[in-house]
Amino acid sequence: MSMDDYFTNLNDRERAIFEGAVSMGALYHQFVGTPVNMDTKKSLEDAIKSSIKLQPAVVDVCVNLDEKLIADATKRSSYTSVTGDMFNVEITTKINDTSIITCIKYIEDLDYPLMFVKE
Amino acid sequence: MSMDDYFTNLNDRERAIFEGAVSMGALYHQFVGTPVNMDTKKSLEDAIKSSIKLQPAVVDVCVNLDEKLIADATKRSSYTSVTGDMFNVEITTKINDTSIITCIKYIEDLDYPLMFVKE
Amino acid sequence: MSMDDYFTNLNDRERAIFEGAVSMGALYHQFVGTPVNMDTKKSLEDAIKSSIKLQPAVVDVCVNLDEKLIADATKRSSYTSVTGDMFNVEITTKINDTSIITCIKYIEDLDYPLMFVKE
Amino acid sequence: MSMDDYFTNLNDRERAIFEGAVSMGALYHQFVGTPVNMDTKKSLEDAIKSSIKLQPAVVDVCVNLDEKLIADATKRSSYTSVTGDMFNVEITTKINDTSIITCIKYIEDLDYPLMFVKE
Repeated sequence: MSMDDYFTNLNDRERAIFEGAVSMGALYHQFVGTPVNMDTKKSLEDAIKSSIKLQPAVVDVCVNLDEKLIADATKRSSYTSVTGDMFNVEITTKINDTSIITCIKYIEDLDYPLMFVKE
Repeated sequence: MSMDDYFTNLNDRERAIFEGAVSMGALYHQFVGTPVNMDTKKSLEDAIKSSIKLQPAVVDVCVNLDEKLIADATKRSSYTSVTGDMFNVEITTKINDTSIITCIKYIEDLDYPLMFVKE
Repeated sequence: MSMDDYFTNLNDRERAIFEGAVSMGALYHQFVGTPVNMDTKKSLEDAIKSSIKLQPAVVDVCVNLDEKLIADATKRSSYTSVTGDMFNVEITTKINDTSIITCIKYIEDLDYPLMFVKE
Repeated sequence: MSMDDYFTNLNDRERAIFEGAVSMGALYHQFVGTPVNMDTKKSLEDAIKSSIKLQPAVVDVCVNLDEKLIADATKRSSYTSVTGDMFNVEITTKINDTSIITCIKYIEDLDYPLMFVKE
């Protein structure tokens, strides 16, 4: 059996949603805790982007770690650890002609970094 | 806005798929690398189950780390690190009346621990 | 060569320090980000303790995740992610007759969870 | 109290050993599991190097992920996950005039990626 044989029970949109969500869960839990400061932010964003682009169906990844949170957390120390609130990420997954954008961003109303599918 | 407001663009099945996939990606990347042997396997499985059951829409989690792989990897050492191939997991997510079971297991044909939605 | 052959350049105290520090770095970066709330705190502490006790030279591990921080972070949501500030951990390592206690705890003066060797 | 006040019980060599070991434990457990292939190897090595150089007392970091293992693991798939066996890393820590090099590499005799202090 090939990989596609395991996905015959999902339509293209469902599979794009599935792959985007797997990749977002992976990204969060792989990289949370990584040492970072303003000097290394770009290098870490690049590595996150490169590694997540390898995952199935991923065609694009935009990663912005929150500058203000990193700057605030490094006022009194030379670096900090990546926290969930810092993630501003969009992952585009595509199955045949169907694309989905999966996002994570900190939502003030929820006081929580929410993962969701962009309209 | 409440959390539900961010999911009006997904039907119940799509959202159950989304939440199951996020939780599976999270589980893999959070716990891969954890020191384990046959004595601590149960304690780690329990903690994985408890922590992933906290995630949105998750109603059940079954976790079995592969006994044979752990036994093989600890023949010459007192412990090993959890690898992706060891995961046998099923996560059940439910939105209203719609349930989805998201799985990971090592597929020999693919030589790969595959994440998929169970028929 | 056996494992001990790689440590002939360290005395017992240095090697106990080395192994305690490796285990503390491991613990922090393995478990930061794990979903947790007051109900699953104990199960996660048990799994952390069990897994870190497997590491070389470790003879005891005390793990207390900060109750107040978990309670505060779950006032408006059903769970949170483990952050570095939550760790109160002591790892005892022993080489022959020499023991060392390696700690992590949040230090208010530093606004930082510090890893150090206890007097 | 400043950070140095917590380390008055360690001499320079002991503290260099401590900081090198913390950083090596951190590196292993932070980055194990990251998606990687031959195309993204360099970007990941750069991010590992940048982030670990932020840690206390670290003055140099050399990271080589094992090309052969990555190539082998991606013969039948487009990417793999970083495993402990892939790490070839040297971290140099320095306290005043005392430097220590902490290593991890796979040791065939032990069938194990060993962390140790280089002679």
